[in-house]
Amino acid sequence: MSIHIIPVTGLPIIQRGDDLAQLVTAASNRQGTPLADGDIVVLCHVIVSRAEGNVVDLRDVEPSIPALNFAEYTGKDPRIVEVVLREARAVRRMAPGVLITETRQGFVCANSGVDKSNVPGEDVVAPLPGDPDASAKAIRGRIKDLANREVAVIVCDTHGRAHRDGEVNVAVGSSGLSVIRDRRGERDLFGYELHVKRTAVADELAAAAELVIGQADEGVPAAIIRGYGYGKSEESKATELVRPREKDLFI
Amino acid sequence: MSIHIIPVTGLPIIQRGDDLAQLVTAASNRQGTPLADGDIVVLCHVIVSRAEGNVVDLRDVEPSIPALNFAEYTGKDPRIVEVVLREARAVRRMAPGVLITETRQGFVCANSGVDKSNVPGEDVVAPLPGDPDASAKAIRGRIKDLANREVAVIVCDTHGRAHRDGEVNVAVGSSGLSVIRDRRGERDLFGYELHVKRTAVADELAAAAELVIGQADEGVPAAIIRGYGYGKSEESKATELVRPREKDLFI
Repeated sequence: MSIHIIPVTGLPIIQRGDDLAQLVTAASNRQGTPLADGDIVVLCHVIVSRAEGNVVDLRDVEPSIPALNFAEYTGKDPRIVEVVLREARAVRRMAPGVLITETRQGFVCANSGVDKSNVPGEDVVAPLPGDPDASAKAIRGRIKDLANREVAVIVCDTHGRAHRDGEVNVAVGSSGLSVIRDRRGERDLFGYELHVKRTAVADELAAAAELVIGQADEGVPAAIIRGYGYGKSEESKATELVRPREKDLFI
Repeated sequence: MSIHIIPVTGLPIIQRGDDLAQLVTAASNRQGTPLADGDIVVLCHVIVSRAEGNVVDLRDVEPSIPALNFAEYTGKDPRIVEVVLREARAVRRMAPGVLITETRQGFVCANSGVDKSNVPGEDVVAPLPGDPDASAKAIRGRIKDLANREVAVIVCDTHGRAHRDGEVNVAVGSSGLSVIRDRRGERDLFGYELHVKRTAVADELAAAAELVIGQADEGVPAAIIRGYGYGKSEESKATELVRPREKDLFI
């Protein structure tokens, strides 16, 4: 049984107040791939933030003294540094050209996930949604209302990693699926118990979606993943994927 | 244009000397999804190691004194610790229940990627292939010879990560595609230059494949990804994804 990763094409430039669930549902219908029960809808965080009006016009930002200091040290725009610091609960690493923070949600990433790409208006940036799990849940509920389809929703962002070069897409918000598939206690093909096997399926789904999303020239900010039998969950959230620093054995 | 992730089903239990390219080609034909130009064939490292005879019978392993010491401290089987240490060029973290190493190839992961799952024979483990990039290249060449198809090949393993809970599939070997898509200098939908955008596509492809591979009860150790327009490369290797420790800003 194959899995399909379907780009959602023809979405307009998302504006504050836009109904993303409605736009994605309509776009899916238009392109002949209407949403189905069991689909996973993956949305770039930028369009979610934009729909929620969670964008910052840098012309309105007055950098604080710490932001001015850090901007000089890192070589970054002090107004962007100010926005990044407002979104952070801690700084993890600062160096020329580098500002890695722990976001309010707990994600460790460059620039608190504040993204300039794909936002029209020369001086506008989009932070992460304030509560990406809640955003995912709201969009999922709205799809249920509009299309009568039971889907899962993932809000994604592209993060750098420790130990490995390059960035990959990860889940920063999730609703409707177990973000981790816990297979401890299961047995493999030969009867061995799988001792450590907790797969971060929400991150793997986000990575898979990026294969169609990562085409900025085509403007594809959303994808549908069809045919993956995920574990349904009303409670599971992307913030479960945050590993507390004191338990992090990989740093 | 959708991407399809196709499980390769019906593969036998792989034995030393098996021709993986031939077996995957035949299985793809049997299931009605013959390999096509531009496909990406993703193979679990365990079957590659097994085909190469790169498995270790723990009954033949004499643990060294360091292995005995570390086994006591970590609570692990001293013979497995011995195999793990032989595969490592450095230990990154040791704690009760935990042995994170830097493998000979440079990958930072638990137990040097030595895997007990899915290997028949109670006391047999499979390390990573000695040179997973070379393994991928050989299999790719053999597919070209047998099926006259130009594919890319990725050898994958499941790794834990810093900062995020759960494991994800990553590329440990690769041939035929650029493992990183470097989009610096490209412009997005609104004409912004994408300043930092180096996507680790080989890892995203490995993660996508895991959505069909990660079903141990069904015994699916390989997948075909179809419809992804990767950058062709004869030189690019998975070891490019290793970030040298001194340049690692995320630890």
